[in-house]
Amino acid sequence: MTDAINTLVSKMTLEEKTSLCSGQDFWCTPAIKRLNIPSIRMADGPHGLRKQAEAADHLGLNRSIPATCFPTAVTLGSSWDRALLKKIGQALGKECQKEDIQLLLGPGVNIKRTPLCGRNFEYLSEDPYLSSNLAAAYIEGVQLEGVGAVLKHFAVNNQESRRMTLDVNVDERALHEIYLASFETAIKKAKPWGVMSAYNKINGDFASESPWLLTHTLRHEWGFEGVVVSDWGAVNERSAALKAGLDIEMPGNDGRTNNKLITDIKRGDLSETHLDKTAYRVVKLALEADRKKNPQDVDMVAHHQLAYRAALESSVLLKNEQQQLPLKTGQSVALIGALAEQPRIQGGGSSHVNPWQLDRITDLFLNAKSDVGFLYSKGYSLESDDCNETLTREAKAIAQEADVAVIFLGLPESYEVEGADRTHLHLPPNQVQLLQDIANVQNNIVVVLFNGAPIEMPWIDIPNAILECYLGGQALAKAVYDLLLGHANPSGKLAETFPERLEHTPSHLSFVTDSNSIRYAESIHVGYRYYDAKKIAPLFPFGHGLSYTKFQYGDISTNQDHFCAGDTLAISIPIQNIGDRAGKEVIQLYVLPEGQTSAPAGKSLQAFDKVNIAAGDSVTVHLQLNERAFSHYCVEHKTWRIAGGRYQIMIGSASNRIHATTTITVDSTDSLQKKVHRNSTIGEVFAHAERQALMTNWIQTIPKDACVYHIFSEGSEWMVKMSMQLPVRCLANYSADAPTDEALNEIIAKLNAI
Amino acid sequence: MTDAINTLVSKMTLEEKTSLCSGQDFWCTPAIKRLNIPSIRMADGPHGLRKQAEAADHLGLNRSIPATCFPTAVTLGSSWDRALLKKIGQALGKECQKEDIQLLLGPGVNIKRTPLCGRNFEYLSEDPYLSSNLAAAYIEGVQLEGVGAVLKHFAVNNQESRRMTLDVNVDERALHEIYLASFETAIKKAKPWGVMSAYNKINGDFASESPWLLTHTLRHEWGFEGVVVSDWGAVNERSAALKAGLDIEMPGNDGRTNNKLITDIKRGDLSETHLDKTAYRVVKLALEADRKKNPQDVDMVAHHQLAYRAALESSVLLKNEQQQLPLKTGQSVALIGALAEQPRIQGGGSSHVNPWQLDRITDLFLNAKSDVGFLYSKGYSLESDDCNETLTREAKAIAQEADVAVIFLGLPESYEVEGADRTHLHLPPNQVQLLQDIANVQNNIVVVLFNGAPIEMPWIDIPNAILECYLGGQALAKAVYDLLLGHANPSGKLAETFPERLEHTPSHLSFVTDSNSIRYAESIHVGYRYYDAKKIAPLFPFGHGLSYTKFQYGDISTNQDHFCAGDTLAISIPIQNIGDRAGKEVIQLYVLPEGQTSAPAGKSLQAFDKVNIAAGDSVTVHLQLNERAFSHYCVEHKTWRIAGGRYQIMIGSASNRIHATTTITVDSTDSLQKKVHRNSTIGEVFAHAERQALMTNWIQTIPKDACVYHIFSEGSEWMVKMSMQLPVRCLANYSADAPTDEALNEIIAKLNAI
Repeated sequence: MTDAINTLVSKMTLEEKTSLCSGQDFWCTPAIKRLNIPSIRMADGPHGLRKQAEAADHLGLNRSIPATCFPTAVTLGSSWDRALLKKIGQALGKECQKEDIQLLLGPGVNIKRTPLCGRNFEYLSEDPYLSSNLAAAYIEGVQLEGVGAVLKHFAVNNQESRRMTLDVNVDERALHEIYLASFETAIKKAKPWGVMSAYNKINGDFASESPWLLTHTLRHEWGFEGVVVSDWGAVNERSAALKAGLDIEMPGNDGRTNNKLITDIKRGDLSETHLDKTAYRVVKLALEADRKKNPQDVDMVAHHQLAYRAALESSVLLKNEQQQLPLKTGQSVALIGALAEQPRIQGGGSSHVNPWQLDRITDLFLNAKSDVGFLYSKGYSLESDDCNETLTREAKAIAQEADVAVIFLGLPESYEVEGADRTHLHLPPNQVQLLQDIANVQNNIVVVLFNGAPIEMPWIDIPNAILECYLGGQALAKAVYDLLLGHANPSGKLAETFPERLEHTPSHLSFVTDSNSIRYAESIHVGYRYYDAKKIAPLFPFGHGLSYTKFQYGDISTNQDHFCAGDTLAISIPIQNIGDRAGKEVIQLYVLPEGQTSAPAGKSLQAFDKVNIAAGDSVTVHLQLNERAFSHYCVEHKTWRIAGGRYQIMIGSASNRIHATTTITVDSTDSLQKKVHRNSTIGEVFAHAERQALMTNWIQTIPKDACVYHIFSEGSEWMVKMSMQLPVRCLANYSADAPTDEALNEIIAKLNAI
Repeated sequence: MTDAINTLVSKMTLEEKTSLCSGQDFWCTPAIKRLNIPSIRMADGPHGLRKQAEAADHLGLNRSIPATCFPTAVTLGSSWDRALLKKIGQALGKECQKEDIQLLLGPGVNIKRTPLCGRNFEYLSEDPYLSSNLAAAYIEGVQLEGVGAVLKHFAVNNQESRRMTLDVNVDERALHEIYLASFETAIKKAKPWGVMSAYNKINGDFASESPWLLTHTLRHEWGFEGVVVSDWGAVNERSAALKAGLDIEMPGNDGRTNNKLITDIKRGDLSETHLDKTAYRVVKLALEADRKKNPQDVDMVAHHQLAYRAALESSVLLKNEQQQLPLKTGQSVALIGALAEQPRIQGGGSSHVNPWQLDRITDLFLNAKSDVGFLYSKGYSLESDDCNETLTREAKAIAQEADVAVIFLGLPESYEVEGADRTHLHLPPNQVQLLQDIANVQNNIVVVLFNGAPIEMPWIDIPNAILECYLGGQALAKAVYDLLLGHANPSGKLAETFPERLEHTPSHLSFVTDSNSIRYAESIHVGYRYYDAKKIAPLFPFGHGLSYTKFQYGDISTNQDHFCAGDTLAISIPIQNIGDRAGKEVIQLYVLPEGQTSAPAGKSLQAFDKVNIAAGDSVTVHLQLNERAFSHYCVEHKTWRIAGGRYQIMIGSASNRIHATTTITVDSTDSLQKKVHRNSTIGEVFAHAERQALMTNWIQTIPKDACVYHIFSEGSEWMVKMSMQLPVRCLANYSADAPTDEALNEIIAKLNAI
């Protein structure tokens, strides 16, 4: 196979090779017919297929062919359900096969650095472990069907403002532990066929022109063997991009940049051998995709049902006081809010799907044969943020007469969209005003939310219950119905923190929208890591989500209490459903290094599972940890390392609800020794026993007139502590009798020889 | 004079010149007798003279000669009283003259980046305006007496941990607006004879080896004409330090580094001309100091009285519910706490003064002829953090019988000291336990605090009143007495924020003590700027301080409502004392730029005054603002600039208690235009009207098949907004008919020509 592809590449002209590595139009690579190399067709994902008919424009203004609109990534992220993500991946793969699509542009695993990012609805989580593991499952699903997934947007594309010119300054630890980690596991585990390079710059280089990113990290360190496709329009200088490791420039430009490439190659600025390697990868993908083509009929009804299940699994019950939910038999319920008629099921931009079926909440509820009686009133308009007195009056009237008011609130499409960031976290003022007005006539209020990212809730005390449905896809209505009526039990958990207010968010002081340069000042303290470290209470923490039943956690068991690199730590914990109905629980395992002296890293999610438990039943959940769970990225040595010491293993049902904890001892992988130099501190030298002995002997030989000497021999505890921070250069040259530079250099050489 | 000094320098040998620029011992520069160049003697300040007799050691372990111990800088900073600082400067100058000291090592104006810094007690404030203006007054006072002040530690020495090896990474805006600003005004206004270079590195270079810091910024930009003295032991490589602009290396080393310098000069690594300039500055200072020598008797009793006044003006009444203070005639009062017997009046380390007189609170209170009755009990031990049952029992007994318990709490010396940082903000546990125990038997509790920096107060609800005395100097006792009994009215205001908890402090996630590298992630958001921007409520805000009377603020008047660079904005506001006793008020003026789109700078202190107002009287306070009050440091152009727009002028009695606000329009100084390049956004081009016109015309000439074109001609509001963020390179090469690179470069050249 390798030889066959090499032979093919060797037969290609320079023109064919350059053209193969650029779009022939907005969606396809060119076919090279004389060599039987087929075209590769791509389509936007990630939560449904967006294939545009030939005549359609390229920007999503017009409708694409009908497809199943699954819940968006923010919603699916809240499912914490790998199996579900895999099934959705498979369904998408099948729809791709039906429409002759070889590469699906998704999933998106950019970290939610700020809730303001207008494209957060396309991303899975603020946590790289959760994000990367769910993405892996999704990719596996897509690729099981013989279609390639293109993981995007690689990397550090965490805001929409200035995304094509922004230079993100991010420290290496945050880069590896947070931003790259969200890609790394998905790539290593699921081997996506493609990765999409992002628009922005990272520490000075465009992502699409960064050899460090596209070649060193992605291919050499992570072993990625697929193709790198540019985000649409992300290529700044194609030669530089190709050199860095980009394979396919998208979209095409009628050969404009191909001609430039050819000129560069002829001038010797770019080697043809490099182009050959790139062409090799594209040919290989085109042939493999072609071999796996499997046009088929798709059971779209089953996909609709899967979309329903996804919405069910992903909706998060944020609050439920006085057991307001589920609704009770015999209650009369006022449904209020335009979003019940015009539900917001997905976000705006390139991911916008044309759903082949769309259930409306009002239709479903009002026509249902239910023991609960429903009335509906619009309450507010989605077209304007102004209050409408007539709508308010009508809504109040039905709310007053009902036992419960279920108010549908959320963000209109204009509030969050690809290409722009939000400027605040508020609901439209007319919706908030309506809620307050209803509260004047009705105490029993349930709020159902449709939004793609967190909102502030200064009104949180008004409703007894809040159900966060995010953007729930085309089958959302029935999921809402079943959850509100208790036909299903909520089991979604937040994959992101809801802040009490925008100012509390980790990036608040370093989020910029009007500059081409940004600094990620919060470093690794993204999401719950920040709220934990700063002891700022969020509105709702990461991992939070209520159920109609209750679970009781037992004690943690481990297969060992001492861990070395290479081990697999097996952890189990029994969990019982002590309520009166079946329910699913998400078991969250966090690891916390103990005794950090400064720059605290805090706890981080390192394993999770979702289990279904019948009322009264118990299950034992088994989780595993490997060395990565105890590792940090060491900037000094540019590698992952384990700091030896005690680590807490915490298991809970939310990041702030830990039910069981155990502690294990972990061995350091830290055999690297610091080089001693003039400005090494005495404490750094003394950290190593042999070095301490040598240095102490030496200090005893130096003249006793030195204050330095007195520190060691006569000093108080404070003086000794201070002296440990003196650079070793202070031991020389302080007087005529003191050691010389030469003597100091000599002892430093001896110390380094140990 | 200049010629005379030049002549002297020209007569000096290389050996004499090098020796002149280094200590001859721990405190003095050498005299060069054959040329009648006298020695310069230095002594530690800043809140009292620490001159050590010849026989004493160099590290402050032994006692120095007795001197007046004034309140430390943290205390004086809370006075907000320029005149007081100037008087103290004069008193210190007089004591220096008496002891033949030519340079006093102080004041310290490092910004309090974190309350953990062990040396905060030697610094004035978290705010550069307050710090620099108080320091200027102090320097003026010292130098009025013919003694030089040495402003320290220049610069960015904001923690003790690893201070000799730490590399501080701080962005240029924070550097100029916060850290350097605290030095800048003091240097420009008061022209200190000396500046002390700090131990640490700044962005890669040792402060003592940074030409950018010691020459470019200090001498060229700020016009400093004095000498730069190294912190003791701060010189890493003397040649590099001399080249950078350091004048005097301290302490001396018996000529060791002089010989190295001579070698370097002979080898041509260092020019003798450069050494001549340095020697010139030292000779000039030595002669000037000699000319101003004025040995005199000092009225030490008057200095004690001044120390009393300083403590009085600087103590801050943090809380006073139910008018618990002042104590009432006829009340019986239990004085509790070892700190009343052993008051902590100053911090530990190089600034430690041997007070010539020390008043004890217990002596003063118990012997006073007062209408209030006092009993005393020790309550806890300062030697241990453990509770002592006997002491507790005794304290409870007297507390129970009294009408009020006044409990003296604070940080033992071991808790805060030069050379080490704190690791937490707690009081010793035995003190907190005692407070809780007393609360079980007495409701009327007053807490008096002695500490050098903020503490957490989880116990804040227990006392009705809290008087923060900081470290109050040798005459503290009478100040406490007069304030508690109402013989004097508290008027101190916090010069720093008290956080509710350590985790809320601005630098919490980027404060490190175990690394040689630190990043100031919070940037300009230091102190109240951070709490304002993050909307985190502090325990007590910057500027806070209560009085026994009340003040009412009128409306702000200004001489103009439009401000241009070069103007002086005159502001006045009437204030009335509406209480029944005289009192002093600190009027605080903050400036807040309106309408910032991102990276908010928030309000900042730009003027203040302290006025004494008799009961019922009104005064009108006059303040001035110049262009600096509206300027920010522009990193792109490396200069201070004004962003045009609306600015709020806010006047209040604390940073969170604004009583009057007005708004003025300020003209931009922003005439600099950005250069257009391939990756300039269309929005950046359109920001300039002529450029927009040219570009729009050009866009209309390009082929209509381009999606880019459609964005402008047919796009929705969202599309237009997004297109403004496209780089101009997207206008070329997107198809065979699109503009070429050459055409793009041509239009870019035309745009840049505008």
